[in-house]
Amino acid sequence: MTAERENEILYNLRRKKVEVRQLGKILLVNAGSSSVKWKLFESSNEEIIAKGLVERINMPGSIFEVAYGAKKYSETIDDLSYERAAAMIFEKLKNLKIIAHLSEIDGIGHRVVAGGQIFKHAVKITKDKLHQLKELSDFAPLHNPTEIEYIEIMEKTLPTIPQYAVFDSQFFTSLPEMNAIYSIPYEYTKKWGIRRYGEHGISHDYISKRAAALLKKPLSSFKMVTLHLGSGASVAAEKDGKAFDTSMGFTPLTGLTMGTRAGDVDPSIIPYLMKKLDLTVEQTLKIFNTESGLLGLSGISPDMRDYAAHQDNPRVKLTVDIFVNRIVKYVGSYFAELGGLDVLVFAGGIGENNAKLRSEIVAKLAALGLKIDPQLNEAGNEGIISSTDSKTTIMLVPTNEELSMVRQIKKVLE
Amino acid sequence: MTAERENEILYNLRRKKVEVRQLGKILLVNAGSSSVKWKLFESSNEEIIAKGLVERINMPGSIFEVAYGAKKYSETIDDLSYERAAAMIFEKLKNLKIIAHLSEIDGIGHRVVAGGQIFKHAVKITKDKLHQLKELSDFAPLHNPTEIEYIEIMEKTLPTIPQYAVFDSQFFTSLPEMNAIYSIPYEYTKKWGIRRYGEHGISHDYISKRAAALLKKPLSSFKMVTLHLGSGASVAAEKDGKAFDTSMGFTPLTGLTMGTRAGDVDPSIIPYLMKKLDLTVEQTLKIFNTESGLLGLSGISPDMRDYAAHQDNPRVKLTVDIFVNRIVKYVGSYFAELGGLDVLVFAGGIGENNAKLRSEIVAKLAALGLKIDPQLNEAGNEGIISSTDSKTTIMLVPTNEELSMVRQIKKVLE
Repeated sequence: MTAERENEILYNLRRKKVEVRQLGKILLVNAGSSSVKWKLFESSNEEIIAKGLVERINMPGSIFEVAYGAKKYSETIDDLSYERAAAMIFEKLKNLKIIAHLSEIDGIGHRVVAGGQIFKHAVKITKDKLHQLKELSDFAPLHNPTEIEYIEIMEKTLPTIPQYAVFDSQFFTSLPEMNAIYSIPYEYTKKWGIRRYGEHGISHDYISKRAAALLKKPLSSFKMVTLHLGSGASVAAEKDGKAFDTSMGFTPLTGLTMGTRAGDVDPSIIPYLMKKLDLTVEQTLKIFNTESGLLGLSGISPDMRDYAAHQDNPRVKLTVDIFVNRIVKYVGSYFAELGGLDVLVFAGGIGENNAKLRSEIVAKLAALGLKIDPQLNEAGNEGIISSTDSKTTIMLVPTNEELSMVRQIKKVLE
Repeated sequence: MTAERENEILYNLRRKKVEVRQLGKILLVNAGSSSVKWKLFESSNEEIIAKGLVERINMPGSIFEVAYGAKKYSETIDDLSYERAAAMIFEKLKNLKIIAHLSEIDGIGHRVVAGGQIFKHAVKITKDKLHQLKELSDFAPLHNPTEIEYIEIMEKTLPTIPQYAVFDSQFFTSLPEMNAIYSIPYEYTKKWGIRRYGEHGISHDYISKRAAALLKKPLSSFKMVTLHLGSGASVAAEKDGKAFDTSMGFTPLTGLTMGTRAGDVDPSIIPYLMKKLDLTVEQTLKIFNTESGLLGLSGISPDMRDYAAHQDNPRVKLTVDIFVNRIVKYVGSYFAELGGLDVLVFAGGIGENNAKLRSEIVAKLAALGLKIDPQLNEAGNEGIISSTDSKTTIMLVPTNEELSMVRQIKKVLE
């Protein structure tokens, strides 16, 4: 090797280091239809500098919250718009002295539900990519448009900061065709990419790998089922270190009973309801997505925490029974197709915080050899919560979608 | 007791006997969109006098077949209509000297898919009942209208013979609400009877009770899963002697991959396909019902027997893999919610005749403790086909929907 070539290599190595170091703070944005969750990360050490939540956007009593270090900031404003919420995040980051200048933010990462068959990895957002994202809105009609709106708002607010998209669907691009496609005419499947794209892929990816890491073995050594139970809820099966199946479908409507989403439902109900309620097909699907699930069944709330005062209401009991039973059935079906189950993971708002529900679900899986440890389950710490004689290791793994996003954005830059 | 009262009781008893004896031959009709299957029963001893099949109705090369005793009659006619097919059945019964007079037929029983929440038992068809049946067509838009047409044709042809309807849905009226309803707004469920009505109930009812009888215990002593695998295919779970769950839904579209039906599918695909193909919602659902399933996946045939010449075609392999895997997943999910499985029953055209497929399905259920006996499975006789060390008793039970219908019609007369 010539001295010149050696110098060149050394220069490139140094340059690469500088670039990686340059990726300092990253803002991660998870935009929903009426809320925005965000976290500001120091990417070098993966520490959270601050995090926030904006709820009830465009509604009376919008809530704007920031937590940084041990401190909290909270404000209630009526009818906070998307634009104003975005501007407030940046203002507060400066005013609360979390950062000195906005220029300290080296990148903004957005969770995007549907990447279709185009986006199999996180990407830096360009004009072309944004256009492609817009064309994928059919795959997540209630998610992608909001996410795109947020990308555009942030672009306008901070045009010099690069933005990245990380896809919920990318974890599921590995599904075997047997589980990925529907039993509809194969030509349509191929021609228009009609398949199971899944949702919460960023979460399932994180919790499956984290569970394996906690067990000190590679993910590929386990037959695993991961439960992401939040206001959106999904089950995924992992095998050979990759996603093998998932309850979410072409869109995030199907699978488990969710906060407001119906989960699995006979499509033939659509024309029947259209006739009875004089609706379009889109309006009927909107009922399945926004007025169904726990809310539609209970008539009380999409949030199980609100059922505490209604324990004697038979409809509340029915609602919880249906929620639990669908999870039990999905775990059973994945147990069968995986040919056994080494690890079952609970995550998501309900999965992480509702010990009673975890206990009920596992009790109903007794015939498959699953057994919870009541003390470990009540303690609710990250790690194993099964008893030593459980055939399947049951774990609680708080999800961290933003950390997973930071790692994926780092990869884009490598 | 007075002598008078005794006489009255004796008279009534005698009268009842006469009535039961009077129910001699019953014709059972199972009308599909392009075919009619029928069996003529001697109701007293439950013996089949003759059976027949009309296929390819309203198509070139309609096939009309009758089997009686050891004899067979077959004829191919172009574009045989429903009316002509019905008339031919009666003509041939006389011409082939199977019966001397049509008056020997004491009743005609029709299989009706959807009885909604109105019909929980078999009924004698009156003008009012026929009107109610018509109103239930939304629950089985591809089945009920054809069945009603057949009832009306038979009524016209033989107006003096009483007709009966036996419902596929009635077995599933016992589903616990948890499994019967969808996670849509509860008001709609209640107001319009939107629920899982199931299909093949006559078959699941028959095979579950027959399996229990062969095992010499009442059905209530078993946790059972019954597989009716024909061109239509469904899974049912039985517990406490009753139906506990089923893969068919509001209509017979959902669940397993069937001959031409898609089974479970994300309803959000409907507006997407409507846009791509410029269709109405009804036309799109028709694709899911008539161009999907094994036909849509393979591009070859809705009948697996036609795949023999295409073993190397990867799409055929994919089609069979999907068919098998959906069954495996349903059995796993029912295993979980039943809390174990005592008996698994195979029935229906595929379930009764395809030993290779039975063997593949059971092999994939090994993790649940199921094991087939290769010799018993190959032999294909009614009874147990599991090995002695299988945790679940696996059985082959040829279905007999018509016999079940005869028994239900007898009950109407009691």
